[in-house]
Amino acid sequence: MADAKAAIPVTNSDSPYPLVARQAAPHVVRISDVEFGSDEFVVIAGPCAVEGQDQIENAARVVQSLGARVLRGGAFKPRTSPYSFQGLGLEGIELLRRASLKAELPFITEVMSVDQVWELEPRVDAFQIGTRNMHNFELLKAIGETQKPVMLKRGFGATLREWVLAAEYIAKGGNHNIILCERGIRSFDPETRFTLDLAGAIWAKQETKLPVIIDPSHGTGLPELIDPLARAAAAAGLDGIMVEIHDDPDQALSDGDQALTSRQFKTLMSNLAPIVEAVGRRMENV
Amino acid sequence: MADAKAAIPVTNSDSPYPLVARQAAPHVVRISDVEFGSDEFVVIAGPCAVEGQDQIENAARVVQSLGARVLRGGAFKPRTSPYSFQGLGLEGIELLRRASLKAELPFITEVMSVDQVWELEPRVDAFQIGTRNMHNFELLKAIGETQKPVMLKRGFGATLREWVLAAEYIAKGGNHNIILCERGIRSFDPETRFTLDLAGAIWAKQETKLPVIIDPSHGTGLPELIDPLARAAAAAGLDGIMVEIHDDPDQALSDGDQALTSRQFKTLMSNLAPIVEAVGRRMENV
Amino acid sequence: MADAKAAIPVTNSDSPYPLVARQAAPHVVRISDVEFGSDEFVVIAGPCAVEGQDQIENAARVVQSLGARVLRGGAFKPRTSPYSFQGLGLEGIELLRRASLKAELPFITEVMSVDQVWELEPRVDAFQIGTRNMHNFELLKAIGETQKPVMLKRGFGATLREWVLAAEYIAKGGNHNIILCERGIRSFDPETRFTLDLAGAIWAKQETKLPVIIDPSHGTGLPELIDPLARAAAAAGLDGIMVEIHDDPDQALSDGDQALTSRQFKTLMSNLAPIVEAVGRRMENV
Amino acid sequence: MADAKAAIPVTNSDSPYPLVARQAAPHVVRISDVEFGSDEFVVIAGPCAVEGQDQIENAARVVQSLGARVLRGGAFKPRTSPYSFQGLGLEGIELLRRASLKAELPFITEVMSVDQVWELEPRVDAFQIGTRNMHNFELLKAIGETQKPVMLKRGFGATLREWVLAAEYIAKGGNHNIILCERGIRSFDPETRFTLDLAGAIWAKQETKLPVIIDPSHGTGLPELIDPLARAAAAAGLDGIMVEIHDDPDQALSDGDQALTSRQFKTLMSNLAPIVEAVGRRMENV
Repeated sequence: MADAKAAIPVTNSDSPYPLVARQAAPHVVRISDVEFGSDEFVVIAGPCAVEGQDQIENAARVVQSLGARVLRGGAFKPRTSPYSFQGLGLEGIELLRRASLKAELPFITEVMSVDQVWELEPRVDAFQIGTRNMHNFELLKAIGETQKPVMLKRGFGATLREWVLAAEYIAKGGNHNIILCERGIRSFDPETRFTLDLAGAIWAKQETKLPVIIDPSHGTGLPELIDPLARAAAAAGLDGIMVEIHDDPDQALSDGDQALTSRQFKTLMSNLAPIVEAVGRRMENV
Repeated sequence: MADAKAAIPVTNSDSPYPLVARQAAPHVVRISDVEFGSDEFVVIAGPCAVEGQDQIENAARVVQSLGARVLRGGAFKPRTSPYSFQGLGLEGIELLRRASLKAELPFITEVMSVDQVWELEPRVDAFQIGTRNMHNFELLKAIGETQKPVMLKRGFGATLREWVLAAEYIAKGGNHNIILCERGIRSFDPETRFTLDLAGAIWAKQETKLPVIIDPSHGTGLPELIDPLARAAAAAGLDGIMVEIHDDPDQALSDGDQALTSRQFKTLMSNLAPIVEAVGRRMENV
Repeated sequence: MADAKAAIPVTNSDSPYPLVARQAAPHVVRISDVEFGSDEFVVIAGPCAVEGQDQIENAARVVQSLGARVLRGGAFKPRTSPYSFQGLGLEGIELLRRASLKAELPFITEVMSVDQVWELEPRVDAFQIGTRNMHNFELLKAIGETQKPVMLKRGFGATLREWVLAAEYIAKGGNHNIILCERGIRSFDPETRFTLDLAGAIWAKQETKLPVIIDPSHGTGLPELIDPLARAAAAAGLDGIMVEIHDDPDQALSDGDQALTSRQFKTLMSNLAPIVEAVGRRMENV
Repeated sequence: MADAKAAIPVTNSDSPYPLVARQAAPHVVRISDVEFGSDEFVVIAGPCAVEGQDQIENAARVVQSLGARVLRGGAFKPRTSPYSFQGLGLEGIELLRRASLKAELPFITEVMSVDQVWELEPRVDAFQIGTRNMHNFELLKAIGETQKPVMLKRGFGATLREWVLAAEYIAKGGNHNIILCERGIRSFDPETRFTLDLAGAIWAKQETKLPVIIDPSHGTGLPELIDPLARAAAAAGLDGIMVEIHDDPDQALSDGDQALTSRQFKTLMSNLAPIVEAVGRRMENV
């Protein structure tokens, strides 16, 4: 990794986060052939958790057909209670991989420990670091030693500065393939599950060279807010969104309440298109 | 007022806020001839505080020429410290009124006490209830006894439900001419002055019959975030924005740091137009 | 008032709040003959709202017999919903006054508007400014023009600095008879109704000359936390507590869930005594 | 571990956290011979980070001589920036171990990853899980597979329920030697670094069988608040405190601003004693 680090041009040596600070040239991160930070507005979609072969393959087909460019699905799930469904683990990864190949969509999935980084590196298209692990510095360092693209979610109790410094931990290891994802912070209001900090996501886009997306599903917990927030993200100049869909939200093993049905997702995509166009960007496959 | 109240159709008697709850027909609020909640996306602009005749008249002319539809300006200023500039008071109201007439723009200004309600009612086009007075129930009741349009800002420590119930206090008095304005809530992050709760504003729009706008100037305190947030508000289907402008932000007597220059405001308006069009709405005078 | 102001020694002219900043000599505030800020640890107790003559007179007798030194009770109630019980108003004040005389306890009650200040000034022993009115600057100014003792509750969304500056507004009018009361701030945790900021109360005690107490009833909403927090306040060197009691919490018209029964209040007083003694202070009437 | 789990009496099967929920008999956790949750009030003290042999040995001697019962010191430091001092690692552990033996005080130190758990298990007296790793579920599970005592700090963005469920993760693995430590949560107030949730700590004490302590050093960031909060913790019936001391706070490599000098720590211990006695508990070695 020493070589990789040596080759990195440090663009802003006065910054507290010189490696990820904003720079003149655009920094594009690729998950397979999908570009984040270019003129494409990228939609990542899929279920919260992989629950079985049919479920994930159907989901992959549906989201692909409606214009999503990356498949999401959790196999290792960080759950608040030890008695909740913890994910299918490696079996879930294998199901994701097959669904991804069939639908011709790259996939992203959460990684929760250093051991999993080594185990999953050859098997996944992109890593996700979840909100509860944003400050898991050993995990950040391990991912920094790979060249795998990684989506770094903001900790729900983390400041914007801490979020960007967590990205700097990864970049310091030599891996600059980082996508930032704002997914809501804790606030006092109980109506929405979290408070989606859109202004903070815009701040991160202006302050760093990294692509920035939002996750309005986790960020609000309310399906009816996802469509307008997706449009808001596009209008504000962010680089994409990640949304949860589930054929049968009531039966989902994790976070079903906030998932969109296929029909709702279709509406979202159709409402999103004119906004993406209005800001001079494009969506592939729509 | 009893007659006025008797005439109000209560549309959702199971709601905790039956008078302002969502209803089938659109509820349009007019400040002079400017409609909030119709298909127009309305921009309110002006300085934080009225500082003198030239300043407010110049500001009014500039914002009118660039497409703003309502002039804002504070004459009675709620300031955290008793030693800060407290506004020009009635003299400021008179300056506002003249600037408003010259520029042919209606104006809105903050009212801070019951006495001021009666004093300002014949002199202003619309009242603003500031974030620090959202829970000033005596003030809410007094405004409910007028028919003057009022913009009710969300308290920075208030839940969404409390905000809507504050509107219900006004409506219960007989005045349904209420515009809700999200202006940022307190959170732990120090980069932005407040955390603008766009999802909360969308929630309020879906949950009530009232027009909803945002104030990205106070909501973030950072001029560079105002333009993208204005676009986000339009894309999300909200009804307008309120922004601060100041010819010389460094010399402003109140909140200069967050004000846009005329040039920045012009850019904002020009960036905003295609988004407003993309969602099928319009801006007058642009 | 000009004379009163002229006579006030400004002790710390570099402070943002010179009139209330800490000074060498202790500043004692008296409600009738009860001293706040001396070596006495003062307990204020009573129901959230005055509901009737028997209720308030019984409550006064009970709290007096168990060692409380000031009676609390709300006649003008700031309620989130306009459809909730709003208090008995002036009739409630009269009931409070009689109960207070019979039990030989001074009383404190909330004031919500400038008009009420003038109306209640001759009738009450002390004013309370509630959390929702901490930033009602017109109310602060009006109270500053009286010499009536006032308990200024911290706004649940207000910073410590804003709280102290609100006190400075009152002092600037000439009234230094201010007691600060921490009553919990908004945070993300739903177990307790608010997050009681004991460290913030200690900070206010160190930073200002004013007596500081806490209200663990509103501050937590959980009766079982009130007793240990009362002891914590005494141990930390604060000047007193305010607690809600209700003979029949299930039937209370306001905030019954968090009220202590007489029996629980008796236990609290008995647990509190050794702590007060351990810090070298005293409780009268115990 | 299956055997260990089988032997655990589940005391409250209706609880969301049956293994750590409150039970009739007291649950005492021992770090070496020091008991948490008995009638002793325990003081843990030491520097934030181990910086060298002299520093940690002096600190150990001082805190032992003044009545602390456990030595704290960080060798693996979770730092927000990758460019900050990251701790001495295994060398620091060795220095801690020697200082601990010389001063005859057991020691506790932070562990940040699963690998470190196995590496440090034979070398340390107790583990600390820091606030940033409270939701590192793989780490919780690994510690659950040991029988080493562990202090679980509350995440600064974690709810009380999430904190207790994190303890349940450890207990589910078979390790019930858990001490909860409240260390402040994120709030909007900038005066204190975090908002110490004393009410939350009391809630955890009432809701679970586990010993609960507070860390007023990290919880406030202000040395002048530590002494009164230590007294508050004792008065409220909690089981101990953890404080940072540093001979030369200005030169500390980590968090020097909030450390107490030896002299201040001595005053704290002397002020604490009468409160501990007043609640019927004791401090050894004082």
